[in-house]
Amino acid sequence: MDDLLLKPKHSLIDQSLHSTMGAEPTNGDGFGIGWYGLGETPGVFHSVEPAWNDRNLRNLAAHISSPMVFAHIRASSGSAIQQTNCHPFRHGRWLWMHNGLIGEFHQLKREIVLAVDPSLYPEIEGSTDSEVFFYLALSMGLEDDPPGAVERAVGLIEQIGARHGVDQPMQMTVATTDGTTLWVFRYSSAHQSRSLFYSNNVSALREQHPDAPILQQVSDESRLVVSEPIGDLAGAWTEVPESSYSVIAHGEDHIHTFSPEAEKL
Amino acid sequence: MDDLLLKPKHSLIDQSLHSTMGAEPTNGDGFGIGWYGLGETPGVFHSVEPAWNDRNLRNLAAHISSPMVFAHIRASSGSAIQQTNCHPFRHGRWLWMHNGLIGEFHQLKREIVLAVDPSLYPEIEGSTDSEVFFYLALSMGLEDDPPGAVERAVGLIEQIGARHGVDQPMQMTVATTDGTTLWVFRYSSAHQSRSLFYSNNVSALREQHPDAPILQQVSDESRLVVSEPIGDLAGAWTEVPESSYSVIAHGEDHIHTFSPEAEKL
Amino acid sequence: MDDLLLKPKHSLIDQSLHSTMGAEPTNGDGFGIGWYGLGETPGVFHSVEPAWNDRNLRNLAAHISSPMVFAHIRASSGSAIQQTNCHPFRHGRWLWMHNGLIGEFHQLKREIVLAVDPSLYPEIEGSTDSEVFFYLALSMGLEDDPPGAVERAVGLIEQIGARHGVDQPMQMTVATTDGTTLWVFRYSSAHQSRSLFYSNNVSALREQHPDAPILQQVSDESRLVVSEPIGDLAGAWTEVPESSYSVIAHGEDHIHTFSPEAEKL
Amino acid sequence: MDDLLLKPKHSLIDQSLHSTMGAEPTNGDGFGIGWYGLGETPGVFHSVEPAWNDRNLRNLAAHISSPMVFAHIRASSGSAIQQTNCHPFRHGRWLWMHNGLIGEFHQLKREIVLAVDPSLYPEIEGSTDSEVFFYLALSMGLEDDPPGAVERAVGLIEQIGARHGVDQPMQMTVATTDGTTLWVFRYSSAHQSRSLFYSNNVSALREQHPDAPILQQVSDESRLVVSEPIGDLAGAWTEVPESSYSVIAHGEDHIHTFSPEAEKL
Repeated sequence: MDDLLLKPKHSLIDQSLHSTMGAEPTNGDGFGIGWYGLGETPGVFHSVEPAWNDRNLRNLAAHISSPMVFAHIRASSGSAIQQTNCHPFRHGRWLWMHNGLIGEFHQLKREIVLAVDPSLYPEIEGSTDSEVFFYLALSMGLEDDPPGAVERAVGLIEQIGARHGVDQPMQMTVATTDGTTLWVFRYSSAHQSRSLFYSNNVSALREQHPDAPILQQVSDESRLVVSEPIGDLAGAWTEVPESSYSVIAHGEDHIHTFSPEAEKL
Repeated sequence: MDDLLLKPKHSLIDQSLHSTMGAEPTNGDGFGIGWYGLGETPGVFHSVEPAWNDRNLRNLAAHISSPMVFAHIRASSGSAIQQTNCHPFRHGRWLWMHNGLIGEFHQLKREIVLAVDPSLYPEIEGSTDSEVFFYLALSMGLEDDPPGAVERAVGLIEQIGARHGVDQPMQMTVATTDGTTLWVFRYSSAHQSRSLFYSNNVSALREQHPDAPILQQVSDESRLVVSEPIGDLAGAWTEVPESSYSVIAHGEDHIHTFSPEAEKL
Repeated sequence: MDDLLLKPKHSLIDQSLHSTMGAEPTNGDGFGIGWYGLGETPGVFHSVEPAWNDRNLRNLAAHISSPMVFAHIRASSGSAIQQTNCHPFRHGRWLWMHNGLIGEFHQLKREIVLAVDPSLYPEIEGSTDSEVFFYLALSMGLEDDPPGAVERAVGLIEQIGARHGVDQPMQMTVATTDGTTLWVFRYSSAHQSRSLFYSNNVSALREQHPDAPILQQVSDESRLVVSEPIGDLAGAWTEVPESSYSVIAHGEDHIHTFSPEAEKL
Repeated sequence: MDDLLLKPKHSLIDQSLHSTMGAEPTNGDGFGIGWYGLGETPGVFHSVEPAWNDRNLRNLAAHISSPMVFAHIRASSGSAIQQTNCHPFRHGRWLWMHNGLIGEFHQLKREIVLAVDPSLYPEIEGSTDSEVFFYLALSMGLEDDPPGAVERAVGLIEQIGARHGVDQPMQMTVATTDGTTLWVFRYSSAHQSRSLFYSNNVSALREQHPDAPILQQVSDESRLVVSEPIGDLAGAWTEVPESSYSVIAHGEDHIHTFSPEAEKL
């Protein structure tokens, strides 16, 4: 993993380890990694140090081998720099990362939090919009129907936003996983979302590019999910279109339309 | 302030600066100081390092001179070690410190938070019972009638606790101030509260103990509020009785009965 | 590993994971773990948070499986609370933990540092006596002859101490390993060293105590190195005598006399 | 001070408070402030959080009023992110900040450290080139003859560098003060130093620009020392030329040539 970690500009310290979703330019408001290893639940490591100089991260990266790794580097939009605000967030076997923001979250937070299931409510530890969004999606059934749950969660947030006169309550790229399947979403109320790409099937790429060293280092199942393509390998990347999500598992990936679903009131 | 800071066992690093309220034995889950100085609002410094080795604290202590200083050393009962969980908490000109806990806070938190005024709700940044208790007291009118507001807040917490079958929802010693007057409270649902003392008028003590060096270092208005008396000066300390509060200002102090006030439902 | 981690008083968070060497009473000036896993060099994780509340530690512990784990909880004797001062220290495949101190290190530091091999000198990153002691032992041949190198390092430190009129320059229990063999040392210039114990061969113990749950959880090769015996299992512990060291590898352990070796001058 | 603190791009959080010396572009490897206030020695506050989000910094800034304030934001060139590596460094009444680096410090460090006075050596707490440079300058007489001491320190560093085949051992802008007089230096072995400016006498500027709000907020004695001019006020800034230093005190400032002075060997 050292090559991936040590390249300064497009290194995976900045953007990902195996699978990840970066969005912001370089920033230093903490970071986190999540991975599936020995324990029943995924491991999570959060730090408020800038990732580029964190020695614990370098040590862990050299010692983690996992079929699914999330990495996230945070640019705070105002909430405190603390470990409980660092992505990925975890619930049971699920991990969640969100880039973007809930517009005017200060105003909307109380109503959104009220919609979180009371049994899940006490698990919220931080103060970010992203964590509340995760618990709202869990309350809406994320573990049984991830796309539907996220559509219902976003629908509700937009509904609450509309009641408060907030024009564009949601900007998001989201990645979530149960350790086996990966769901990635791209959506914003303004329909001008940040870009989102994932790498294509590695075995096909390896045939086209037998000499690309990075393709020798990763397994057939590896996927990178990033905000901007890394490197210049032809055919390496699929862009998730505006208002879409993709389901990636077992070497296959499928793109679907994402439609927030407002509650009947 | 150096003598007060450097005595290892009963030093004011462990327990207070000028006015404070310690309760727990030695612990290291962060600390904070609050003081009234140049700014319009009191200054607050929070740290998650153990206070006894914090170099910034030593520097600040040497440079802070204030008629009212709060200091608090935290022993977490489970919530995260982060600056937003460190006391004293601040709202406008008010500071708040709480030792003790809300019983089964995990269960009661959602209902208590719902009782916080929606306009104050977004200011809650941490995850502790103590901060929520502060915002509940503010919602109940702390700034106009501190004793009444705390009585109403505790009454409501006990009512919510009763609904959830929690026997003893409240254990507390609390100190709060607007920078001029200091209110200290001692109460628990079980009527077995932690001890709470404050030092008596310094000018009277100085006449009795002309040679006590500590009395030369502090001004006439200085008061220490502590969980256990420091030193062995006869006549130096007043104990706040069980289920009582005291109002301290302008060299005078008065003790009153504390009676939680349940809401009519 | 959860049972070992969650017992509050004698848990291995406080004292060890698989193999460790505790000495101080509860303290919170940072901690570290080192383990042998996937990488070429051992992994090291250092933190300045109190170990008992560190969430990253809990996550890592649940995901680390290693035949050799060092854990250390630090009580600073004055040097700064920072990751570079946390044990275990690492050089190549070697780990090093030290409890105790070099007497009057402030006075002796410069001369001791001068005796560190110039090629190793730039690797010193922190400000503790323990790290300098490690690099001195490395300079004296730790990688080829650990007991001899530690004897020469301690001999030189005592010699430098004598020149500066320091009566008791060394107090130490030390554990060091290359990942295969474990060396533990107990020595002090005053011949009044802190106690040091290690657990006996697990397979023999398992026969004597078929019902002890902790013995079912650890492998035959597991050893605990601690300052005080944990639990009350008869025959479980061997005490390292004053001025001795033990070599533990491949299920065997041997105790030898430790004699600091002064340089000819 | 709030206007100065809240402007995002050229704010004094990024670059200075009253007097400072910025050099690097935005970076987040810790920061520090130093000021002269109540204590006998200047106060120092160091933090490893990114300055732009540090809440303690905002609190302290609102409560600090001082005739001389140093602020520094660090971009690490490799050494650890820890408080002991944060500028400004302090010795007695002296503060010291350095932007730039000692070339190949890894190789040169041991010899430079050997040249530090043995009585000062134990005060070195961190691992940066900048702190060692400060203690070398102190060893060379900084407190009696600041320009001469810095010239001798730089001369020695260049001499040591030459012995090790290091072409350009020194890049620096330095600010140092005893609380009354401020010395700023600009020099590099390659004679291509980073830029360095200081603001001119405020009372003269105020006459020219009666409407500039920033000039109303600062006292006659205020000076800003920065790597790039802030704002576009004509006549506001003096550039320190290559290989020069300036002495600023009591409303006056004088520029002199800086010539490193090699030791006779």
